[in-house]
Amino acid sequence: MSTAGKTITCKAAVCWGAGQDLKIETIQVAPPKSHEVRVKVAYTGVCHTDDYTRSGQDAEGAFPVIFGHEGAGIVESVGDDVTNVKVGDHVILLYTPECGECDFCKSGKTNLCGKIRETQGKGVMPDGTSRFSFEGKPLLHYMGCSSFSQYTVVTDISVVAVDPKAPMDKTCLLGCGITTGVGAATNIAKIEPGDNVGVFGAGCIGLAVIQGAVQKKAGKIIVIDINDSKKEWAEKFGATDFVNPIKDLKPGETIVQKLTEMTNGGFDWDFDCTGNVQVMRNALEACHKGWGQSIVIGVAAAGKEIATRPFQLVTGRVWRGCAFGGVKGRTQMPGIVQDYLDGKIKVDEFITQRYPLEKINQSFQDMHSGNSIRAVITMTD
Amino acid sequence: MSTAGKTITCKAAVCWGAGQDLKIETIQVAPPKSHEVRVKVAYTGVCHTDDYTRSGQDAEGAFPVIFGHEGAGIVESVGDDVTNVKVGDHVILLYTPECGECDFCKSGKTNLCGKIRETQGKGVMPDGTSRFSFEGKPLLHYMGCSSFSQYTVVTDISVVAVDPKAPMDKTCLLGCGITTGVGAATNIAKIEPGDNVGVFGAGCIGLAVIQGAVQKKAGKIIVIDINDSKKEWAEKFGATDFVNPIKDLKPGETIVQKLTEMTNGGFDWDFDCTGNVQVMRNALEACHKGWGQSIVIGVAAAGKEIATRPFQLVTGRVWRGCAFGGVKGRTQMPGIVQDYLDGKIKVDEFITQRYPLEKINQSFQDMHSGNSIRAVITMTD
Repeated sequence: MSTAGKTITCKAAVCWGAGQDLKIETIQVAPPKSHEVRVKVAYTGVCHTDDYTRSGQDAEGAFPVIFGHEGAGIVESVGDDVTNVKVGDHVILLYTPECGECDFCKSGKTNLCGKIRETQGKGVMPDGTSRFSFEGKPLLHYMGCSSFSQYTVVTDISVVAVDPKAPMDKTCLLGCGITTGVGAATNIAKIEPGDNVGVFGAGCIGLAVIQGAVQKKAGKIIVIDINDSKKEWAEKFGATDFVNPIKDLKPGETIVQKLTEMTNGGFDWDFDCTGNVQVMRNALEACHKGWGQSIVIGVAAAGKEIATRPFQLVTGRVWRGCAFGGVKGRTQMPGIVQDYLDGKIKVDEFITQRYPLEKINQSFQDMHSGNSIRAVITMTD
Repeated sequence: MSTAGKTITCKAAVCWGAGQDLKIETIQVAPPKSHEVRVKVAYTGVCHTDDYTRSGQDAEGAFPVIFGHEGAGIVESVGDDVTNVKVGDHVILLYTPECGECDFCKSGKTNLCGKIRETQGKGVMPDGTSRFSFEGKPLLHYMGCSSFSQYTVVTDISVVAVDPKAPMDKTCLLGCGITTGVGAATNIAKIEPGDNVGVFGAGCIGLAVIQGAVQKKAGKIIVIDINDSKKEWAEKFGATDFVNPIKDLKPGETIVQKLTEMTNGGFDWDFDCTGNVQVMRNALEACHKGWGQSIVIGVAAAGKEIATRPFQLVTGRVWRGCAFGGVKGRTQMPGIVQDYLDGKIKVDEFITQRYPLEKINQSFQDMHSGNSIRAVITMTD
């Protein structure tokens, strides 16, 4: 019996307030309106950004809310005027939408899309309301995705159909971390064969950056992490060197000095995958004078600022950043899924834990332990 | 009677210590050694960087020293192994040398040359000694040029021969400010027709940036300066708008908000030509989300740092800088002089004062008044 046009009752992990654990609740999901799509979420990843907002550090975080933005599922129903996906399509949710019509999308210079930015930031659909409710009271959406619900409603520009042969329990991770890292190294950086690449932080994004650097035939790929257990991970993905700044420096030596020496002058490209503003500074200053570029990927805590002497820029270093690896989701994601199916991008290797929805809080605890790369949550009962 | 091979006695403006006025002294200039060139300086510009070091703010400043780095003159004699210039050549001094052989020169990615960087920074020739002396005691060189002396000795990679038809009382200014600004806009930025350009600070460098932006057919060229008298200057060089952040903002409005509104989202390219780190921040944040690039040209005071939220970079703004406008002096300067002769670059219009060497301190006072663009000092008696 079709559920199209009807409110669906299902389970979701709800965060009722800043700093609270998620609670599995039975919620209602209204039908999609015009240009909206209702998706039965099959699998979702759990990302540091979810936890960042959960913790209350995100000044723009609002509650109660349904987190999750690394989701893969199947289109259950579509609202009016939806033409890009149809019922039954296997889809990946896109927290960076792509309308193809706004000044940003048409610029050819960025993957940021302006069309639904304001309402997405407020946790509502473009008409200003939510499709989620609990006992009649609205629950907020998150990053335009809310993949921690068994059913979610997203705008049609926030979803892309991909090859149904691709296993959704893997491709969900292409919705954020892996794509962000690979994209930063392949879309944003212009790595040339033999270039020296630095990767600060060997979590999901950092490991994905390594993959991108390997694809581009980088020379040295040096990973910097304060957790020694990441050495093995880094090497597994193709890093050539690993430095632990807590243990591997000589007395009086700074990490920037160490890295500059290891690279005969500094990195051609490096990447902050930590969100720590002091690390971002080190990353910039470890770039090669004259041309080295440092790319900020990590999300810093609210109010934190990066700083350096302007001399670093005047002498040719470049500071930039990107979101979602510069990837235009609707245009590029089908190709990224194909790369995965063709063995060109590792995805399975990122998964360190799997949990049913009921155990989702465990995945947040795993992140804090530092020994998790990615947990995948099975959303179906 | 040739002076080649002999010590020359001449006048120079010597700075004996931090914060002191210059003093016209009679000094000795030794003959050039291997790979060195002795130049009879005809004219020199006076730049804020000279005054910055004179003031004592420059932590690397050393005394006693002969300042000046915007110099044009005629080769008086050459040391052994000099092949790129000969006696009688009209030359421009290059504080950014170009050896063509070091990793930087060969990279194709930067105009910074590493060959004599260390000794130049210490105020000596590559052999570690000075060619200047006063009563037998050495005086330091400055930025590899020391154009405030009637005769100077520079390395052969710090000098370029140009068309002798070009009047040296104008081309001296191509040795720094004008070339820096034009180069930043034409070499470093990739301005496309119609792009909105911001220029913070309408001194010599800012006005030169405007020229470069006009060449590249920019759309709006908005100049920001706290000195209203710069409005007329900015318009003379091609600016479309002028904003005085002290007087032109509505209550509660920030300069970033004002500029973002004027440009429908921010600058495609903007330039700090002030050396003020708060202005540098404003310049970055006034760039267009997704692609705007801010280029730091100004030299900040020692110890000053730039700062911003990393979110500015993650959302696509790029922070970079350059020295000498990214220009490779020996390769590009003859063409820049030709552009001047062909009327493609204004130079004469920058000159607001002319002084004999004896009055050089007056030119420093003019700079502080804010109503000088460039003073040219006549070095010959």
